[in-house]
Amino acid sequence: MRILYSIQETREVVARTRAEGKTIGLVPTMGYFHEGHLSLMRQARLDNDLVVVSLFVNPIQFGRSEDLREYPRDLERDARTAEEVGVDIIFAPSVEEMYPDGYNTYVEVEKLTEGLCGASRPGHFRGVTTVVLKLFNIIQPDRAYFGRKDYQQLKVIQQMVKDLNVPVEIVPMPTVREPDGLAMSSRNEYLSPEERRAALVLSKSLAHAQALLDEGVTSGHELRQRVEEFIRREPLARIEYVAVVDPETLDCLAEVQDEAVLALAVRIGNTRLIDNAVLAR
Amino acid sequence: MRILYSIQETREVVARTRAEGKTIGLVPTMGYFHEGHLSLMRQARLDNDLVVVSLFVNPIQFGRSEDLREYPRDLERDARTAEEVGVDIIFAPSVEEMYPDGYNTYVEVEKLTEGLCGASRPGHFRGVTTVVLKLFNIIQPDRAYFGRKDYQQLKVIQQMVKDLNVPVEIVPMPTVREPDGLAMSSRNEYLSPEERRAALVLSKSLAHAQALLDEGVTSGHELRQRVEEFIRREPLARIEYVAVVDPETLDCLAEVQDEAVLALAVRIGNTRLIDNAVLAR
Repeated sequence: MRILYSIQETREVVARTRAEGKTIGLVPTMGYFHEGHLSLMRQARLDNDLVVVSLFVNPIQFGRSEDLREYPRDLERDARTAEEVGVDIIFAPSVEEMYPDGYNTYVEVEKLTEGLCGASRPGHFRGVTTVVLKLFNIIQPDRAYFGRKDYQQLKVIQQMVKDLNVPVEIVPMPTVREPDGLAMSSRNEYLSPEERRAALVLSKSLAHAQALLDEGVTSGHELRQRVEEFIRREPLARIEYVAVVDPETLDCLAEVQDEAVLALAVRIGNTRLIDNAVLAR
Repeated sequence: MRILYSIQETREVVARTRAEGKTIGLVPTMGYFHEGHLSLMRQARLDNDLVVVSLFVNPIQFGRSEDLREYPRDLERDARTAEEVGVDIIFAPSVEEMYPDGYNTYVEVEKLTEGLCGASRPGHFRGVTTVVLKLFNIIQPDRAYFGRKDYQQLKVIQQMVKDLNVPVEIVPMPTVREPDGLAMSSRNEYLSPEERRAALVLSKSLAHAQALLDEGVTSGHELRQRVEEFIRREPLARIEYVAVVDPETLDCLAEVQDEAVLALAVRIGNTRLIDNAVLAR
């Protein structure tokens, strides 16, 4: 496995691969790998001749008051783990390599980015779509892998790829969870033992919502209220949003017809966690 | 020569070309070809194995009160002319093909787009960068050709390509002029004979500016004022802007050091014309 820091060198390596008619899979990450990342890499390994993992903590997707500085980093451990699952290249550019002086171009998906995390993190998705398009242009992968844990991000990237005719297949991958149900996230690292226990309220509230739907609660408004009540019973939890939305448009649903996505963002202490699930009648 | 209307079919044709290791040149146009367009096509023919000309009057780069509906169109004549200069494919998608229902993604270059035409045509360059990136993703050309007549557009596209790491070489081409100096433009079609004569004030004012610089007038402010006075002597002309700018940053120059670009937009009757020249000390 090679670790590359320069855009130019990375371009040259993938160009040789492409010239041989081989396929390329990209797993874009911010590093600090957990089983969620590894499941993406394993799938990319199965599907492609060359597997590239980008590792870049993208400053333009963080708000001013967010955790850019504290975001956990461990390139050495990440490199070891990636090599074990068969990754060929880690592309780990510096901020200056990605955003040199005078950088001024942004990609924006409208509408889908307005609600949920887009409302509480203004500019976040603009940062995400911009860096993902840059990575697609540098690596020119055949396929790119994204986890469903960041459900809104997945939909936003799918919309960007469709709208801008980006020649990349987006492969959505299931959320990977700890044995007790907590969705894997690099930010779980921030949790104290007590907060780690309290964080279970996210995944439990998703199961609670499906149980309510099974009992016949189909009003989006009522589902949301009942889930909020459920989360409020956990004293360490502070709700940022709970939403029952259409899986494609992300519009809030008055009534669940066949399927809905329950998406939530909850702070446990100072740590912002998100989770979601498809609810099905 | 083939005329293709579908993105999917165009993708398949260029994919076959690329698989054979051949190079692709793209000339993005809004049609109604004049010698300026043809000079781009001829250069593309010299440089590449396959020459694709896109022909699409892009609605999202026109303002509400602009000439989208009246913009001159003549696909039959364009096809004949393109074939004569050796174009292989005209890609002429419909508006629905490029912007289907639910379209929501835009590419924006900041700063460079603020002044000059960006100030008088808000949203114009966002429409240009968005459609050009879509065309790049559909055709995946090795090279794309743009005229210097739209100087700000050229700089904005170069910035987008650099910032987003788009794997396309941008080839800038000189402005082609009528024998009397008028820069070729599809919008020259709108001019009455009297306006056609008055339109010469644009190219003449560029020559006037260079003469002033040769005489030692190096103040950007004074050059601008003297050019504006010159243009005002033409009763049919209405100045939209005259600017003396840095050729790379497009910032207004207080003093011309080595080089500057004099850029101007002038209405002749109802027709908005632009022109520019590099001024050199």
